[in-house]
Amino acid sequence: MHDSKQYRTEKDTMGKILVPKDKYYGPQTQRAVENFQISGLKLPRSFIEAQGIIKAAAATSNMELGMLPKDKGKAIVQAAEEVIEGKWDDHFVVDVYQAGAGTSQNMNANEIIANRATEILGGTLGTYQVHGNDHVNMAQSTNDTFPAAIQMAAARSLHQRLLPALFQLQKELERKAEEFMPIVKSGRTHLHDAVPIRLGHEFSGYAGTIQSAYQQIESTIDLLYEIGLGGNAVGTIINTHPDYPKKVIDKIRNRTELPFRQPKSMFSFMQNRNAPIRTMQALKELAIHLIKITSDLRLLASGPRTGLAEITLPAVQPGSTIMPGKVNPAILEMTHMVCCQVIGYETTITTAGLASELEINVMSPVIAHSFLESIELLSNTIPTLTEKCIIGIQAKEDNCRKWMESSLSLVTGLSPILGYDYASQIGLEAEEKNMTIQQILQQKGLLTEKIKKAIDPETMI
Amino acid sequence: MHDSKQYRTEKDTMGKILVPKDKYYGPQTQRAVENFQISGLKLPRSFIEAQGIIKAAAATSNMELGMLPKDKGKAIVQAAEEVIEGKWDDHFVVDVYQAGAGTSQNMNANEIIANRATEILGGTLGTYQVHGNDHVNMAQSTNDTFPAAIQMAAARSLHQRLLPALFQLQKELERKAEEFMPIVKSGRTHLHDAVPIRLGHEFSGYAGTIQSAYQQIESTIDLLYEIGLGGNAVGTIINTHPDYPKKVIDKIRNRTELPFRQPKSMFSFMQNRNAPIRTMQALKELAIHLIKITSDLRLLASGPRTGLAEITLPAVQPGSTIMPGKVNPAILEMTHMVCCQVIGYETTITTAGLASELEINVMSPVIAHSFLESIELLSNTIPTLTEKCIIGIQAKEDNCRKWMESSLSLVTGLSPILGYDYASQIGLEAEEKNMTIQQILQQKGLLTEKIKKAIDPETMI
Amino acid sequence: MHDSKQYRTEKDTMGKILVPKDKYYGPQTQRAVENFQISGLKLPRSFIEAQGIIKAAAATSNMELGMLPKDKGKAIVQAAEEVIEGKWDDHFVVDVYQAGAGTSQNMNANEIIANRATEILGGTLGTYQVHGNDHVNMAQSTNDTFPAAIQMAAARSLHQRLLPALFQLQKELERKAEEFMPIVKSGRTHLHDAVPIRLGHEFSGYAGTIQSAYQQIESTIDLLYEIGLGGNAVGTIINTHPDYPKKVIDKIRNRTELPFRQPKSMFSFMQNRNAPIRTMQALKELAIHLIKITSDLRLLASGPRTGLAEITLPAVQPGSTIMPGKVNPAILEMTHMVCCQVIGYETTITTAGLASELEINVMSPVIAHSFLESIELLSNTIPTLTEKCIIGIQAKEDNCRKWMESSLSLVTGLSPILGYDYASQIGLEAEEKNMTIQQILQQKGLLTEKIKKAIDPETMI
Amino acid sequence: MHDSKQYRTEKDTMGKILVPKDKYYGPQTQRAVENFQISGLKLPRSFIEAQGIIKAAAATSNMELGMLPKDKGKAIVQAAEEVIEGKWDDHFVVDVYQAGAGTSQNMNANEIIANRATEILGGTLGTYQVHGNDHVNMAQSTNDTFPAAIQMAAARSLHQRLLPALFQLQKELERKAEEFMPIVKSGRTHLHDAVPIRLGHEFSGYAGTIQSAYQQIESTIDLLYEIGLGGNAVGTIINTHPDYPKKVIDKIRNRTELPFRQPKSMFSFMQNRNAPIRTMQALKELAIHLIKITSDLRLLASGPRTGLAEITLPAVQPGSTIMPGKVNPAILEMTHMVCCQVIGYETTITTAGLASELEINVMSPVIAHSFLESIELLSNTIPTLTEKCIIGIQAKEDNCRKWMESSLSLVTGLSPILGYDYASQIGLEAEEKNMTIQQILQQKGLLTEKIKKAIDPETMI
Repeated sequence: MHDSKQYRTEKDTMGKILVPKDKYYGPQTQRAVENFQISGLKLPRSFIEAQGIIKAAAATSNMELGMLPKDKGKAIVQAAEEVIEGKWDDHFVVDVYQAGAGTSQNMNANEIIANRATEILGGTLGTYQVHGNDHVNMAQSTNDTFPAAIQMAAARSLHQRLLPALFQLQKELERKAEEFMPIVKSGRTHLHDAVPIRLGHEFSGYAGTIQSAYQQIESTIDLLYEIGLGGNAVGTIINTHPDYPKKVIDKIRNRTELPFRQPKSMFSFMQNRNAPIRTMQALKELAIHLIKITSDLRLLASGPRTGLAEITLPAVQPGSTIMPGKVNPAILEMTHMVCCQVIGYETTITTAGLASELEINVMSPVIAHSFLESIELLSNTIPTLTEKCIIGIQAKEDNCRKWMESSLSLVTGLSPILGYDYASQIGLEAEEKNMTIQQILQQKGLLTEKIKKAIDPETMI
Repeated sequence: MHDSKQYRTEKDTMGKILVPKDKYYGPQTQRAVENFQISGLKLPRSFIEAQGIIKAAAATSNMELGMLPKDKGKAIVQAAEEVIEGKWDDHFVVDVYQAGAGTSQNMNANEIIANRATEILGGTLGTYQVHGNDHVNMAQSTNDTFPAAIQMAAARSLHQRLLPALFQLQKELERKAEEFMPIVKSGRTHLHDAVPIRLGHEFSGYAGTIQSAYQQIESTIDLLYEIGLGGNAVGTIINTHPDYPKKVIDKIRNRTELPFRQPKSMFSFMQNRNAPIRTMQALKELAIHLIKITSDLRLLASGPRTGLAEITLPAVQPGSTIMPGKVNPAILEMTHMVCCQVIGYETTITTAGLASELEINVMSPVIAHSFLESIELLSNTIPTLTEKCIIGIQAKEDNCRKWMESSLSLVTGLSPILGYDYASQIGLEAEEKNMTIQQILQQKGLLTEKIKKAIDPETMI
Repeated sequence: MHDSKQYRTEKDTMGKILVPKDKYYGPQTQRAVENFQISGLKLPRSFIEAQGIIKAAAATSNMELGMLPKDKGKAIVQAAEEVIEGKWDDHFVVDVYQAGAGTSQNMNANEIIANRATEILGGTLGTYQVHGNDHVNMAQSTNDTFPAAIQMAAARSLHQRLLPALFQLQKELERKAEEFMPIVKSGRTHLHDAVPIRLGHEFSGYAGTIQSAYQQIESTIDLLYEIGLGGNAVGTIINTHPDYPKKVIDKIRNRTELPFRQPKSMFSFMQNRNAPIRTMQALKELAIHLIKITSDLRLLASGPRTGLAEITLPAVQPGSTIMPGKVNPAILEMTHMVCCQVIGYETTITTAGLASELEINVMSPVIAHSFLESIELLSNTIPTLTEKCIIGIQAKEDNCRKWMESSLSLVTGLSPILGYDYASQIGLEAEEKNMTIQQILQQKGLLTEKIKKAIDPETMI
Repeated sequence: MHDSKQYRTEKDTMGKILVPKDKYYGPQTQRAVENFQISGLKLPRSFIEAQGIIKAAAATSNMELGMLPKDKGKAIVQAAEEVIEGKWDDHFVVDVYQAGAGTSQNMNANEIIANRATEILGGTLGTYQVHGNDHVNMAQSTNDTFPAAIQMAAARSLHQRLLPALFQLQKELERKAEEFMPIVKSGRTHLHDAVPIRLGHEFSGYAGTIQSAYQQIESTIDLLYEIGLGGNAVGTIINTHPDYPKKVIDKIRNRTELPFRQPKSMFSFMQNRNAPIRTMQALKELAIHLIKITSDLRLLASGPRTGLAEITLPAVQPGSTIMPGKVNPAILEMTHMVCCQVIGYETTITTAGLASELEINVMSPVIAHSFLESIELLSNTIPTLTEKCIIGIQAKEDNCRKWMESSLSLVTGLSPILGYDYASQIGLEAEEKNMTIQQILQQKGLLTEKIKKAIDPETMI
């Protein structure tokens, strides 16, 4: 069935297996490919990069500690650097939904690097002068490296992509808040007429919320820095030089310029996936707020004729396949959808988090996928939101004024003068007679200067 | 510490324990009271009633099968009937959060009935002429009776309370749909002007949705009818007369007039809580729809001056402590809050459902609480919603017309005549020049009779 | 910047835009590509196929009703058939996270078909002798076709892939139940010794649960059949021949051999995404049960030396990168991870479902993605689970017997003879003295034939 | 119908209404009682206390600022102090599920205090010499006070109850870790034999996790301290003295000795419920970990004969109604159930959080309930867990040793000497021949001193 010219025969504890000749991975990866034909999705570039960084740092540490022969070690480092650069991405072929704990993913990296290092040393693929387990994986286990790779990939993506994007969003919202501060409009609570507010106030609230979400994400990154490399299979640092944990993490800290450190409790690090769970919750918090903000913007921009129409959004594409000329808030809706997905992924991670069992949590691969994908989605969405929507929002001042002047909630200004009960009567009478508050007051001969001022929106703010 | 006059000394496998003299429960209940001081909440009336029904039916069956002496059996039945009537509710004292599987709850019922039956036979509390385990619990285990009691309580509450309430809601929505069918208004999609629709159409959609949710709930009740009484500890009918399962369920079916039956697979019934999970999902489906419907109503009623104001809701109470005369959509908001809680309880049950382990799922008590409370909340909320809000909704026809006439989406009627592209241009021009579609067409000399008709909302529906 | 040789200039209501020359999509798709660079994911083959089926059926219906010229209509049908076959998949380029309601996705189909049909009629790309909106989308809106396409794609995938996979799983579980029925073992409740059970009983419970989940999924497909084609933008059948809805659905029913029909309430169909929500809940129910079953199997197979080891799973790949010879339950773990994801997707859909607003729910694209991906994941996972794990499970009868004989729960058999209280004492004494129940009974001189039989596991089942 | 002797007639903007004569609340509370007969649940003591503290601080501030006459102000303060003490708890009668934003709850406090203050000043109930809105609610709105009360109640409960309980749990886990550190046992990953670990390691991991959860909860309290009192209806400080916000918060900070402060963004504070959402996520994080820890403990304690039985839990009550002598891990199971509920409540709050709309989020009452109830449940559960379970856990050292000696994972120690591949073979051979690793090595003549040491569990840790 298999054309033998296209395959080489490899062997592991389960026996012989055919591996495509041009592939750098080995028998365990091949078994995983055959076992897990589930989603067609792979773990992302950021994860592979983190795997490469770990493999390089481990090999260097092991060489320095005299555990790993220099020639093999150097070849491993060179191969791992190529993995970091992305040269072997096409050889990372294991499905996201794979062996528990991510053993297959770790072996995929081990085998690629072992074969490539063997090649560097002059050998041929499949001969393993450098061995995937004995050399590439030296002092490591899937159980410590896989979770560490999740956290490294996440911390870097958050710093390089999501946080800057959020900061830009916050700044543009603040700019809009400033721009819109002169515009007085009717507040709305319970979707009902409420006391006046500035359009700028609303945007300043959005900016403040994004800032708060930013800070919460940033604060949760701290736990991501705790990577228990050296913990090995169950946290006991078995088969590992005692200086290895410090050494390997030092190297990673220096290389990434992020303050990775040993965990307060190595056994906590092994037992559960607390760090991704925590940061994921901060992403969900952000998602909840983005849904609120974009829903508000859609409501304020509703219309153009049959809604509130207090602002306009920049048009990015035609809105309807049947209703000509319709322009929809497509960027806001896309953002809302992404947030639904992020909230869903948080449930995925919670559900996976519940499956921690004794020494480890074997659900790490689905956690890696949902977590890193959430970061990716938000990192792509937020700049789109900022640049294609927020920046271009314009106020429709006339509409804002029109709504405000008609608002029944102007009676609130009367409360301190006339008391809540009488002010209420005036409000209800205005509603009944379909008149403005000003008209009712005039009719009653109450429209003194003091009262006029009390219901002047500008003075009510 | 304890005044001995107030307590009697009882004894179980763990040793002696003081029980309040006037209480009909016994030592195991007392231990549970001391162990579980968590929420102060108890399982509801409907659950206690179901426990009583099971105990009575079990005793009768066991007497008929010659397993239980007549005198003891009759006393048990009499005591169980009193439990059913609610006479001993104050003696059901175990916290909702209790021993896994609900052992404490089952013993609470067993001990009350044992003591009361002993009393009926002339004995005194604590002497157990009728024994809680040997006689009251005969042929039973917590593992079969507790889940059965959940399902019985739920099925009855759904039939007696929730489904009639939903049916009434559907009917009133249909009545409103009919009432509002003459009122033409602007549709809104993406919160933007869309083609005309009838206010009655919108309400007919709500009615249709409620009907669909009703049918789904009703359809899921079917699995609630499968009660594995006789399954006993692990489903093997141990220590139980072979005719017992059929007999006990027959009695319950006759008494409740609901078609309870033996489960297709006794072991499935024991292994998981599928029936409550399934019905709870149908309740969540209902909650999602109620949130949609009440949110729509709040949006349509928004204003009175600064919103869409296409309908008015009946005022039920003043709306603001600071803004006089404000009337808020309080009933709709309350409904939304209840639905948030129901959606939360579904998560509780999912999380509990994930904890099934080998022969049983020990999370039954929290499932019972969240499930029955969800039914209770919805059963109380929906009639309130219907009677205090839906029935009193009125259309503001003038506003509906005003919005409609201004809508840019009337150009849709032009598409079949002028093509999508040209119709789009007209729409965008109208928006730019702040004119109506009709005005633009007039300006362009396009307002023929045919075109007039094409953009007449009445003909567009 | 753009090499003009590679692009053609197209135009829509927003102005000119460059489209790659070799692409069959048009300006609106191009705008969407530029607007939505979010995930790199596209809607799946099953969805595109459903879009093609709708477009073909719509064109045929419109021709028959005299709304669409025959030449254009036939060209559309030919192009749509090619879409159905998958010929133009590479031209479906819109990100999953896109314009609300899926307008971009619908335009992608409309534009491909319009260009291809134009080509069929002898024209060149971008000249639109057949127009995307006026002809291809005739009598349609995104708002009716997108949800219909979700439901059609789902119904077909469920019938063709998921349900058969579930049926196979059920059958293999039943086969195992039969095979393992002779094996008596200790039951475990609360993870504690419980009365005897047969290994086959446990598997029969799993089979029964899968059967029940199968039936629930099948039952929810019924609502997927209600497709509101013809509802158009808001459900009012605007710009549509009155016979169109029936006609187009008849054609789809005949072609797919699935009983698609008009919805009971067209406006309900437009207002919310009830059908995917409902089926998704059934998929979540399945996921909950698969987690229970696979967790049980992992526990029963735990060991090989330090766990229960009552069964063995087939080895599919080496289990550890550091612990030699370890074989993990990889297939079961992968299944568990997939189920975590499905449960997460249900949250996504619930969250999206909450965003229904007035006439429609604009979150349809993320619902489509999460729903169809869940079906895909489960459809790939379940056969893997069945074939690579369930079929190969073997009982370790010796271990089952060993556990059973040591179990303290054998005292349960004494209850009917000695009473619950005395039986309890015997059990506790056995535990204290670290003896078996049999040994304690012997010591006490109680081991009569009757008692021997009462605690013989075989007779306790 | 109403006996007039039992009622007094009151009046609000909606008209006359009967209020029970002996009740201190007024017409708006009465309307809420009639409108909301939903759950029978009220907001908890901690919330009422916080309401009282706000009312007292507001009155004092307003007096100092010359806004409120001294006599009325002093009477309000006295009445509010009585509310704080709990004297009027029976008069807080509004259902948890009530008017949006909690208007009814705020009016309930306002009316009780107004009536009581009127009484203090010599008036009779219902005459309102002190007015609920004009005086008691002066400078306040439901929209700023209700969320502030949630945060104050939560911060105090967390500090006074939950955090100390968690600290105690952490300490006892650390004590157990120390106690169990000498005990070497087999690790288990994927529920399969893994390399040796100390029982104390496992408990140290649990302790570390609890510490981490503690820190996260503590860290999120910071946002609870931001209370936007003075924000009033929409955040604009309308009808409020400009010095009021600082003054009122100073008083609350001093009284509670907790660092409450003005929010960074008043409008963010008004627009969403970020603070409870964030802390609730930390509670969910804790719940996930408690489920992991208690599940581990149940697994380690499984047996006594048919499970791992590496530890014993203190018996707190008989475990089964049918299986005599069974003792279940009831406290651990109860904890697990509480955690399921807390996870459900987090969903409730997320769902409610999604409903923020423009100036405020009207879902505050259900957020208050679910959030404060979660704190209450955990605060009651954790000391129970610690005292009735953790403290009494004992190791079964013999079982630990027995499992360890049989473990196949001892081969891991051979890897550095013999290589991963050969070590794997030895492991698989041991499994096949049902021998220990030591026996296989002996058979092969490999049991040198070096190798003996390499597979000695004590040296493998």
